[in-house]
Amino acid sequence: MTDGLEVLPVRGIGDVTAGDDLVALITAAAPWLAAGDVLVVTSKIVSKAEGRLVEVPADGPERDAARAAALAAETARVVARRGPTTIVQTHHGFVMAAAGIDASNVDKTHLVLLPADPDASARRLRAGFLARGLDVAVVVSDTMGRAWRNGLTDVALGSAGLEPFRDHRGETDPYGNELSITQMAVIDELAAAGELVKGKCDQVPVAVIRGYLSAPTTEAAGAAVLLRDPASDMFSLGTAEARTAGLLDAARLTDTAPHQPADPTAVRRAVAAVSEVWSPRTTVDLSPTAAVLRTADTTPTGFMRLGADAHRLRAALAAESIATVLVPLPDGVRLELASA
Amino acid sequence: MTDGLEVLPVRGIGDVTAGDDLVALITAAAPWLAAGDVLVVTSKIVSKAEGRLVEVPADGPERDAARAAALAAETARVVARRGPTTIVQTHHGFVMAAAGIDASNVDKTHLVLLPADPDASARRLRAGFLARGLDVAVVVSDTMGRAWRNGLTDVALGSAGLEPFRDHRGETDPYGNELSITQMAVIDELAAAGELVKGKCDQVPVAVIRGYLSAPTTEAAGAAVLLRDPASDMFSLGTAEARTAGLLDAARLTDTAPHQPADPTAVRRAVAAVSEVWSPRTTVDLSPTAAVLRTADTTPTGFMRLGADAHRLRAALAAESIATVLVPLPDGVRLELASA
Repeated sequence: MTDGLEVLPVRGIGDVTAGDDLVALITAAAPWLAAGDVLVVTSKIVSKAEGRLVEVPADGPERDAARAAALAAETARVVARRGPTTIVQTHHGFVMAAAGIDASNVDKTHLVLLPADPDASARRLRAGFLARGLDVAVVVSDTMGRAWRNGLTDVALGSAGLEPFRDHRGETDPYGNELSITQMAVIDELAAAGELVKGKCDQVPVAVIRGYLSAPTTEAAGAAVLLRDPASDMFSLGTAEARTAGLLDAARLTDTAPHQPADPTAVRRAVAAVSEVWSPRTTVDLSPTAAVLRTADTTPTGFMRLGADAHRLRAALAAESIATVLVPLPDGVRLELASA
Repeated sequence: MTDGLEVLPVRGIGDVTAGDDLVALITAAAPWLAAGDVLVVTSKIVSKAEGRLVEVPADGPERDAARAAALAAETARVVARRGPTTIVQTHHGFVMAAAGIDASNVDKTHLVLLPADPDASARRLRAGFLARGLDVAVVVSDTMGRAWRNGLTDVALGSAGLEPFRDHRGETDPYGNELSITQMAVIDELAAAGELVKGKCDQVPVAVIRGYLSAPTTEAAGAAVLLRDPASDMFSLGTAEARTAGLLDAARLTDTAPHQPADPTAVRRAVAAVSEVWSPRTTVDLSPTAAVLRTADTTPTGFMRLGADAHRLRAALAAESIATVLVPLPDGVRLELASA
């Protein structure tokens, strides 16, 4: 039963207001703190102590408007919207519903914003404990939803004094396989473990995890290393929002110079995708480098429909990553093809 | 320091093979188990004991092919692909890279699949402990990636004997605010806490969480309640995949009967989105219920370009959730508009 860890609640911290010294409050409530402890501190009390509050009307449409303004101010970009839910990326880089703005555990005339820089908050707290002779690590935590799974879990917004990842790169298992799972987000797991004892209504905003660290690491990176930048995120936009972006892509397709032959199977798939919605008078001839569309209806309406059908096929080809150049012919249109 | 919890590693379980009695192995390794403990059991040893292994060649292209076949068999739908990474939804409903198939901690001629029914596995284990007089709860855990955040965490694939959620619905905070954060996914947090002591290379496949439960709940739902169905998931597809779906939507747009006027601002946005890529000869007249496109070029090519431009505008309007019916005119085309 050795080598385990303990997760301990810190009770009696009471209400926190702007300007409060959290280190003093926590050490008074938990005189048993010891070197090597990891303190998981709910971001709510960090925000309150730092005065990250917005005054809002207690109710009515004015409250809704003030709340919307606060959300807009905290938002770097909207990730997804559905019904009353807005998931945004904050200026810090967190992807959270309502930018993490919270109206719970605060009086009705205030909203609580996230700390302006949770890693800096964690470092300040750690420095404050160190000044009292306590060499502890700090995780600033908050509650987040996730894609794909119901329910919320606590994760780390900020950290100081411990490595955010446990890294298995280069290690091998007992069978000699190199480990493919390299980076465990241990500060998120510590935040989750802390939440199990904190609870939301019991006024326990701090948990202590004892036995995880042998000693804090002064030079460790902060929790910001857990933020995935949108370019490397396969889920940077909500599905509906990305689908809308695809419609706009189709609306704005431009000629792209062909540079290599397109995969004939993919071209046939694209034709199959649109041919059932084409004008019955439209025909297509495929070659390795082009699709030529003609119409049996040589009226203005016939050519107009041919043009619409050609753009449908361009969009379907774009969905197969095949770029096109549109070349008008006297009696039709040629789409020159190239793998994108 | 009361009311905390302990997270304890179970050492000495050793290698697990098909047919092994996990309850016997765990109770032998942890004679200190007690009623009310939550056992977090790594799914890998559950799979091994249940014989959920696939034989594969140790290397070469045959191994890659066998691995791809195993992935296809475990996949209900592909969620996102990028480079070597394929994220799928499994037949169970989990969204995981490579369907959770793992080649680590097993000899080179086998792959380990997820348990066929992790909730059933958890119930069987719990029943096995009960038969030995130990009333414990069981969480079957595995390691998953997430959207938006780097690093992996352990979550619950299966559970028995405890509520998957801690539910705050209907509760109020000390300020009288009704709590908006309702459901904490505590079994995922327990899995995360367990991972902190298990480690990947240290042959500790089971952790015990003591002090979390006062007593197990026999009738609790399993971890399957954490699975969000794709229809209610705002991130059911990768961004690139959804964008491709939007291109295909544009390719396959069909006439939709108008039923209510479209928002004029949204219509103007759609026109602005496409007018810079339109033929310079195309003009548009907007009314509350229609967009009429005409061209100054009355050759076949002119009408063909007009048709392509009309389809561009249809796609841009669809991106604004405005449905259209295309009506040919003798000298142009009318798009009848309606909010979708």
